[in-house]
Amino acid sequence: MCELLGMSANVPTDLVFSLQGLMQRGGRTGPHRDGWGVAFYEGRGLHLFKDALPGADSEVAKLVQGYPIKSHTVIGHIRHANVGSVNLANTHPFVRELGGRYWSFAHNGQLQDFHPEPRFYRPVGDTDSETAFCSLLDQVRERFPEPVPVEMLLPQLVNACDGFRKKGVFNCLLSDGDWLFSFCTTKLAHITRRAPFGPAQLRDAEVHIDFKAETTPNDVVTIIATEPLTSDEVWTLHQPGEWHLWWDGEIVSQGRV
Amino acid sequence: MCELLGMSANVPTDLVFSLQGLMQRGGRTGPHRDGWGVAFYEGRGLHLFKDALPGADSEVAKLVQGYPIKSHTVIGHIRHANVGSVNLANTHPFVRELGGRYWSFAHNGQLQDFHPEPRFYRPVGDTDSETAFCSLLDQVRERFPEPVPVEMLLPQLVNACDGFRKKGVFNCLLSDGDWLFSFCTTKLAHITRRAPFGPAQLRDAEVHIDFKAETTPNDVVTIIATEPLTSDEVWTLHQPGEWHLWWDGEIVSQGRV
Repeated sequence: MCELLGMSANVPTDLVFSLQGLMQRGGRTGPHRDGWGVAFYEGRGLHLFKDALPGADSEVAKLVQGYPIKSHTVIGHIRHANVGSVNLANTHPFVRELGGRYWSFAHNGQLQDFHPEPRFYRPVGDTDSETAFCSLLDQVRERFPEPVPVEMLLPQLVNACDGFRKKGVFNCLLSDGDWLFSFCTTKLAHITRRAPFGPAQLRDAEVHIDFKAETTPNDVVTIIATEPLTSDEVWTLHQPGEWHLWWDGEIVSQGRV
Repeated sequence: MCELLGMSANVPTDLVFSLQGLMQRGGRTGPHRDGWGVAFYEGRGLHLFKDALPGADSEVAKLVQGYPIKSHTVIGHIRHANVGSVNLANTHPFVRELGGRYWSFAHNGQLQDFHPEPRFYRPVGDTDSETAFCSLLDQVRERFPEPVPVEMLLPQLVNACDGFRKKGVFNCLLSDGDWLFSFCTTKLAHITRRAPFGPAQLRDAEVHIDFKAETTPNDVVTIIATEPLTSDEVWTLHQPGEWHLWWDGEIVSQGRV
């Protein structure tokens, strides 16, 4: 199994603190030694850092943890391979262009007997995760050949995820850079930090932060992760079939299937 | 105008030396202050580093210059914006998936009155370069809905580039990770380094290298650049309409239109 990390914020925010926690699980406090990746949106552009090395050992990971890239929307992932070999092409997040936007996707779980007919988007690697992402994009594209607002897409996204869920475990994060969509079948949690900001302590490293010193009173920053990353804050655990649509750190739509 | 940098090699090779030269032109010895990017293939996967900051100032560029990522195929670019604003979405190389491979593309030049009908691939930013890349992929996809060997693609690639050339200046590099295709309308040069390897001196920085110390006797490494990067080696200058297909550092096909 893998671990997911997502961020949605109303101001460009760096993810250094949460990444430090996540990367420790990539080979040090956790078993996720099989690569990692982070996609930071900057406007419509995307910084995509990935490595097939464990997060705890990767040179690129050191840069990403030390360099405060500020973003509204981030998707990260550390991998513990179950389907597909350990190589760069199999690391999440996966990215494809749809309707003139970069869509990024990361998955935690495993699908059984899942062999959709290859249509427009084709996996480059050999994971069930990338195959699911391509299938999801194919479904969206087939239904909406031209770009539509995310409110119109939502039933399609939920429906696709609900279909994948029937094949196994499907916790995922998906984004086009503005909105962030999450779907939970077994394990996902979030915390929304807003004023008054307080301190927090990472679970996986001796790292402490005082968000008050890092934020302004109007900041709203939501972190979504497979498991809570801090030990002294209250995280909301998602239920099986629960989905959320985040925008600027806030939930703009949610439901359960 | 921008500057291109490509590498094709028969062994995984790092590009640190050439990148040091190129990045200097990104704001120090050259006017290309409007972003930069490098795509390093690793198997079928891709490391894509980009920044809208000048190469000479970018934190990510410092990592890339200091961290010897070894690759068979690399495409790099520094940007001097003429069409499209300065932002991450407008930095080259651009990447799209086609037939289960990541295709990457960088362009030097400018196209006039170029407004192809958007079909399958859509630009995310607003450059003529990305629009041309999308149009090229659309043409390939329309002609070959299923993947074919590059020998079959070649006439299509040359024909597309020859079409773009009628709209302005179109020097480009294109790759699917195995092969590297170059097309010259005004300015492009290459050097193929093989045994006996000698020393070289960068034009743009006080940097000297002895390739003998870095290579084995069977290595073949071709560097392609808008202008020669070293001052003491003989580079081959490409002619208008000349195209090359490189594989493992060698020319496997070439021609002129």
